[in-house]
Amino acid sequence: MTLSKKPYKGCRDFFPKEMRERNFLFDAMKSAAESFAYEPFDGPMVEEVELYKAKSGEELINEQIYEFTDRGGRHVAIRPEMTPTVARMVAQIAKQASKPIRWYSIPNLMRYEKPQRGRLREHWQFNVDIFGAPQYLGEIEVLSVVSQLMESFGADKEMFGIQINDREIVDFIFNEVIKVDAQKSYRLYKIIDKSKKVDRQALEKMTSEVLEDASQQKLFYSYLELTSFEKLVTFLKEHSYPELTAFESFVQKLKNSQAWQYTEYDPAIVRGLDYYTGVVFEVFDKHPDNKRAIAGGGAYANLLQIFNEPALGGIGFGMGDVTLKDFLISHNLMPKLDTAQNDVFLTYMDEQGENLAMTTAHNLRKAGLKVETNLGVMKFKKLFKTAESKGHTNVAIIGEDEIKNSSVTLKNLQERKQETFSVDDIESITNFLKQG
Amino acid sequence: MTLSKKPYKGCRDFFPKEMRERNFLFDAMKSAAESFAYEPFDGPMVEEVELYKAKSGEELINEQIYEFTDRGGRHVAIRPEMTPTVARMVAQIAKQASKPIRWYSIPNLMRYEKPQRGRLREHWQFNVDIFGAPQYLGEIEVLSVVSQLMESFGADKEMFGIQINDREIVDFIFNEVIKVDAQKSYRLYKIIDKSKKVDRQALEKMTSEVLEDASQQKLFYSYLELTSFEKLVTFLKEHSYPELTAFESFVQKLKNSQAWQYTEYDPAIVRGLDYYTGVVFEVFDKHPDNKRAIAGGGAYANLLQIFNEPALGGIGFGMGDVTLKDFLISHNLMPKLDTAQNDVFLTYMDEQGENLAMTTAHNLRKAGLKVETNLGVMKFKKLFKTAESKGHTNVAIIGEDEIKNSSVTLKNLQERKQETFSVDDIESITNFLKQG
Repeated sequence: MTLSKKPYKGCRDFFPKEMRERNFLFDAMKSAAESFAYEPFDGPMVEEVELYKAKSGEELINEQIYEFTDRGGRHVAIRPEMTPTVARMVAQIAKQASKPIRWYSIPNLMRYEKPQRGRLREHWQFNVDIFGAPQYLGEIEVLSVVSQLMESFGADKEMFGIQINDREIVDFIFNEVIKVDAQKSYRLYKIIDKSKKVDRQALEKMTSEVLEDASQQKLFYSYLELTSFEKLVTFLKEHSYPELTAFESFVQKLKNSQAWQYTEYDPAIVRGLDYYTGVVFEVFDKHPDNKRAIAGGGAYANLLQIFNEPALGGIGFGMGDVTLKDFLISHNLMPKLDTAQNDVFLTYMDEQGENLAMTTAHNLRKAGLKVETNLGVMKFKKLFKTAESKGHTNVAIIGEDEIKNSSVTLKNLQERKQETFSVDDIESITNFLKQG
Repeated sequence: MTLSKKPYKGCRDFFPKEMRERNFLFDAMKSAAESFAYEPFDGPMVEEVELYKAKSGEELINEQIYEFTDRGGRHVAIRPEMTPTVARMVAQIAKQASKPIRWYSIPNLMRYEKPQRGRLREHWQFNVDIFGAPQYLGEIEVLSVVSQLMESFGADKEMFGIQINDREIVDFIFNEVIKVDAQKSYRLYKIIDKSKKVDRQALEKMTSEVLEDASQQKLFYSYLELTSFEKLVTFLKEHSYPELTAFESFVQKLKNSQAWQYTEYDPAIVRGLDYYTGVVFEVFDKHPDNKRAIAGGGAYANLLQIFNEPALGGIGFGMGDVTLKDFLISHNLMPKLDTAQNDVFLTYMDEQGENLAMTTAHNLRKAGLKVETNLGVMKFKKLFKTAESKGHTNVAIIGEDEIKNSSVTLKNLQERKQETFSVDDIESITNFLKQG
């Protein structure tokens, strides 16, 4: 039988070029998180299904999770998201750890999706979370981390934006202004989640199925028209929102922050996952070919309680590598990484030179250089083309003369500068090679 | 219901300290591989089970693999090893790629194991492979990569060794010297695999079940006593091994290589996996508490044929993070990584300083520094202890005077040196902070 060479559906093979691109994204993620002193963590790729059932939301559990029973009868799943794992781990140390806890990770996750642009079954997700921060300062910081990352790629406010909402406010409007019960409130959330994807007629149809009263409908639609912080604050004043002072202070802090220039209030952002309780946000791509969320997150007050630990509020976001890469490509922000970056392609023109080549390569590696030894006698003709295609900045040649003199001839590929050194003079060789 | 805070059985939670340790291992792996110009790659965490059934060996398939049927009816497995994925990916590009192909990866893998010291269900494995290298030069290079990695940790030949065998030679001895058929040869392989873990009596019992003839048994035992390259070569000469010249040339090249000082011939090393066809090896820990293989690998000639591609020989090894870390700890080679490495803990002593602190932090991050802003007003008393516990080399203080003057006071924690700068003078601030 012949086996398929293709990867499993919706998953990717990362050949060296794609892997360098992935490393480029990951390095930027690490730098952004660590510039705010976030610390790295990771959990297992498999968790017990119960962990996700507790809070992850119905769609994920019923349609998207990769679940199975292990050989010992445990019901487990490949991690579809990282937040439940973060919460589980923070629950272990919440009592003794100094607050806030600032963590990031870049795990591989799996969801059973219909593969399409920007959506695959396996992806890597940058996760940033802060636990136990003073109200709103944590939110601002997390929004700043995501801004820092986007800026580090050279992205500006013409390219991306951050849409913000606050589920406490949405709850207030649903419960105290529109005056619906918890069950109807839940259904209104689902309508909001879909509101941008449907036309007015469909929106009205869905709404009328939940809200019979015309005045309730009117309030719901006027909520959906609150497309700026100013309009929102006016509306909240009119309806005597008890937490208005705190919210206005949040907006003020946000205005002073790195994130402000990207930020807008958007009543249609509520985030699908069930665990969010406060500020929620999405980073979205403004490119016309690519209008979708690049990242999403928010504040969750109660995730630790499922582990029987005292509440400790968290704020976090997740950013997938697939959507981020699409964003960078669309805006011409993705560097060309077609070849590796190596220091020297070391060759011998005669079998006799093999030992000398191997020893020299070894010494240069000890000095911190990236050295490829050609395995076998090299034809001079192919030398420069081969070296360039493999990302070398220099070639080293051991020919007849070099064997006689225990030397090596170096040639810089850019400047075509050439020099011969004793193989024992590793310092001079290193200096020559590092100029390139 | 209260959920468990523990990770799934046999898997690990990587808290920041453990994650820094993991990153330390991974960085060393990357450096070793890239110093030989190996390029990074990765594949999906899930593959179709057929891929493993083709070559991975019975124990893995029947007892260790995490397999399940996906929502679309595909029979899949979480990757238990990386070699089948490497082979699948190389098969896609084998025709057009320039040879040799040098690749490495550090994937997370899962096997259904009984968790014990050095053995977990999820581990990360450093995989290094070369395809299409001239015979024996590829083997030598791969052995040099693993030596380079071990040396980079400061390990020496008192701490680890590399045991080598050649399955072509074992096949020759079984088929042409002991003269057994393929089925018996397979059973002898299994006996060899166990030979170090059982006493002489058990070994003789197992052997007599396969070889009835006393002279065959004697030959088998004398094979097991060939514990050096010299003894092996003498034995092969006596029995007219047709490939002796090539093998002697391999030993000669090995003697000239970086790996030689660690290497010994060991007739008991054959590697459990079924796909190896030539040189096989194991890196083993010499510490009395920890006598086990840290890495294993070998040459496999036929893996591409399962994809209906022409044969392209590969040589590779895998090294698990769990056994490597045990090795480093046993030999005191693991650095202390208890805290992060951050540049400055930036604090404000008065609510009024919040904005100034946030802006200054932003500017310092743009300059490449790792800055933690204390969220909320800081009590001076706790300042230095907190900063040290979080791995900062400096503190920055914005108090009453600093607010008035738009300045910031910096203090180096090691030298207790103190200086005040205008917040606009990012260059001087950066210089002060980087001295630490």
